[in-house]
Amino acid sequence: MKPLKGERIFTPGPVEIPDRVREVLGRQIIHHRTPEFREAFLETRELFKQLVDCKEENFVFFASSGTGAMEASVLNFFEEGDKVIAVVGGKFGERWAELGKKYRLNVIELEVEWGKSVDPEAVEKLLRENPDCRGVLVQASESSTGAYHDVQVLAQITKDTDTLLVVDAITALGVYNMKPHEWGLDVVVGGSQKAFMLPPGLSMLWFSERAKERLTDRSYYFNVKEELKKQKEGQTAFTPAISLILALRESLSMLLEEGMERVEERYRLISEGMKRAIEALGLSIFPENPSLSLTTVLPPEGVDPEALRREMLRLGVRTAGGQGKLKGKIFRISHMGMDVMDMPVALSALELALRSLGHSFEFGRAVGEYLSAVHPGVKDG
Amino acid sequence: MKPLKGERIFTPGPVEIPDRVREVLGRQIIHHRTPEFREAFLETRELFKQLVDCKEENFVFFASSGTGAMEASVLNFFEEGDKVIAVVGGKFGERWAELGKKYRLNVIELEVEWGKSVDPEAVEKLLRENPDCRGVLVQASESSTGAYHDVQVLAQITKDTDTLLVVDAITALGVYNMKPHEWGLDVVVGGSQKAFMLPPGLSMLWFSERAKERLTDRSYYFNVKEELKKQKEGQTAFTPAISLILALRESLSMLLEEGMERVEERYRLISEGMKRAIEALGLSIFPENPSLSLTTVLPPEGVDPEALRREMLRLGVRTAGGQGKLKGKIFRISHMGMDVMDMPVALSALELALRSLGHSFEFGRAVGEYLSAVHPGVKDG
Repeated sequence: MKPLKGERIFTPGPVEIPDRVREVLGRQIIHHRTPEFREAFLETRELFKQLVDCKEENFVFFASSGTGAMEASVLNFFEEGDKVIAVVGGKFGERWAELGKKYRLNVIELEVEWGKSVDPEAVEKLLRENPDCRGVLVQASESSTGAYHDVQVLAQITKDTDTLLVVDAITALGVYNMKPHEWGLDVVVGGSQKAFMLPPGLSMLWFSERAKERLTDRSYYFNVKEELKKQKEGQTAFTPAISLILALRESLSMLLEEGMERVEERYRLISEGMKRAIEALGLSIFPENPSLSLTTVLPPEGVDPEALRREMLRLGVRTAGGQGKLKGKIFRISHMGMDVMDMPVALSALELALRSLGHSFEFGRAVGEYLSAVHPGVKDG
Repeated sequence: MKPLKGERIFTPGPVEIPDRVREVLGRQIIHHRTPEFREAFLETRELFKQLVDCKEENFVFFASSGTGAMEASVLNFFEEGDKVIAVVGGKFGERWAELGKKYRLNVIELEVEWGKSVDPEAVEKLLRENPDCRGVLVQASESSTGAYHDVQVLAQITKDTDTLLVVDAITALGVYNMKPHEWGLDVVVGGSQKAFMLPPGLSMLWFSERAKERLTDRSYYFNVKEELKKQKEGQTAFTPAISLILALRESLSMLLEEGMERVEERYRLISEGMKRAIEALGLSIFPENPSLSLTTVLPPEGVDPEALRREMLRLGVRTAGGQGKLKGKIFRISHMGMDVMDMPVALSALELALRSLGHSFEFGRAVGEYLSAVHPGVKDG
C-alpha cells in the first residue's frame, strides 16, 4: 500500500518546508540591487540579530551550503600555521579537521568516541599543554552521531584565553536558544536546510568582537570582511541567494513568533518523548547526551537498521541512516521543523516496521509512551 | 499610476522565472541522499550534457553564485605562480584579475576599452611574448558593458598551445548555442539566475579533457575532482542546492525543447530588433559588438540614464544601470528569459519615459522598428 500523501521527511536536513515558506519560494524573483531587496535583507538581518540575541551585527550570509561557512571560518579567522584543536567525534568533526589541514592550519585532533560528547576537561588539558592554540573547532550538535557537545561549558574554558571557540551549529541554531555572545562563543555556523526549514544553499556565519579583530583576507568568495561591510548596508559582495534570503525572513519570523525559548522547549519535549518511546520498544538511544535536533537509535540485536528504514519508507516515513563508520549500525529521526504532533507518525511507522521485521511488542507502546511523556508539556503550553 | 502587475524584470540577472520553474521551486523539499534525487540529478546532468553538446561528462555544479565557479576555475586549474592573461574590459574582467591575484597567480592584465571587444591579435601577441602563459581568462558576454568577446576565435589561438582558455559564460551559456568542445574552449562558467531562468545560488563549471588533466587540490568547498567523482554518480560532496537542481532540470528541458539553435535565433532576433529600435529613437548602442543577452544603451546628450530608468520603473519596467566606471552613463535591458513578444513592453516604457524627460519623437517609433525587424524571423519561425 503506497501512502497517499507520499513521503514525510524526518531527516536531519533537509527538513520539511512550511507552507508559509514554500509560498515565498514559489514567488517571482526580485532584483537584489533594489530598495525592495535591501529593505527585506535588512529586515532579515534584524530578525537574525534577535535570534542570536546580540547587539552587534557581527554576522554574514553566504550563497553556499553549510560547509561553505565552515570553510569561511577556517579561512577568515586563522592564518596558515595557526595551531587549532579539532574535536573529532563524528563525520562533521572530521570535516573540521580536514578543512583545517587543507588550509594549512596546524590541527591537533581530539578524538572522541562516536556517540560520546567531548569531555571539557580533555579540552582544558590540551589547551594547557598548547598555550599557543588559536582555536577550538567543534560541533554543537554532531548530527552524524546525534551527540550534543556542551559548547556553553567549553566557552568557559576558552573565553579568557587567546583561543577562539568555533562552533558548527548547523543542526543546533534554530533549535537551541543559543546566545553566542552571552555564552562566550566566537564563531557560529548555521545552514538553511536545518531548523530554518528552507532548501539548502544559504549559510550563516556569526562571530564575536574578538574574532572580528582577527579577520583575514585569505578568501575571495567567502570573504567575511567584504561581506560584512556590504551586508550591513543591505547588500552583498556577490549575487545573493535572493529567494532563500526572502524565505529566511519568513522562517525567522516563524521562529521569533513562537519565541526561541519555546522553540527549544518544543524540541526538548519531542526529544524526551522520543527517548521514552524508543526505550519502551527495547531499542536504545545511541548518544550519551542526545542533541535536541534528532533521535539517533541503536536497533535491537539482529535488526538491520537499513531494513527497518526501508520498511518505514514504504509507509512514507523518510529517516536517515548512519554515516561513515556508523553506516548500517544506527538510524536517525530528525525533529527539526517538526511539531510535537508530527512525531506519532514517525513512531507509528517505526512500530509497524519493527513488527514486520518480527520484533514483538504491543502495538501503541511507543506512541503511548511518547504521548505520556509530552502530555504535561502540551497541557501546560 | 502604479502598474497593476507590479514589476517586470528586464535586468541581466536575475531574470524572470517561468511559471513551470516556479511551480518546481514551490514544491516540498526532497532529501538528496535518495534514489529519487539521484535520478533527477543524473537526468539534469544528462540534459546539461546535451546543452553543451559534449560526450564527456566533464562538468560540475556548485551551491554558490557564479563568482563561486569563477573562484573554482582559478583554484582548480592553476597552481600558485602560474602566469595567466586576464582580459579586462569591464567589471567582470576585473573580477578575473582580482581572483587571479588573490590566489597568487601571476596575472597579466590585458586592458580593453570598456564597450569594446578584445582584439584576438592582441591576445596572440601577448601569448607569443609569454610562451609560459598557462591560461587566458575572459568573459564571453561582458554584461557590465554588453560586449561580446568572440571566444570561438580566441580558442583558435589557444587550442594548440599549453594555454587554457577559461571563459566566464555566466551571461552567455543558455543564450548562445555554445559548443565548448567543438569550439576548443577549456573552462566554461555558468550561473543559474541568467539564461537558465532560476533564482541565484547554483553555478556550473564545464571543462575540457586537457583542463581535467590539470585538476589540482587547492580548494575544499570548490573541489572539482571530488565533486566530479560524486556527481557522475548522481551525488555531491556537500549538500547540493536541491531545489535549484530540480528547477534546473525543468529549465534545461525548456531550452532543449526549443532547441539551442532556435534559442540563439530568438535572442539574435530580439537583439537586432532592439538595436534598430534604440537607434530609431536617436539613442546609441554602447558596445561595438553587442552580446545577444542584453542591449546596452547610451542615452542621448543631456538625458540622465538614471532618470530614464526611474521613469521606466514607474511604469513597472526594471532595467539595470551602469556598473563601475559606467555608473550613470548607460542603461541595460536584458533579453534573457524573454520572448520576442516581451520586448515591446520594455520599448513602450522607454518611449513613454523619454517623452516624459522631454525627448521628442513620434510615439510608436521604437516599437514599430522593433516589429519590422523581428517580423521576417517571426513569420518564418
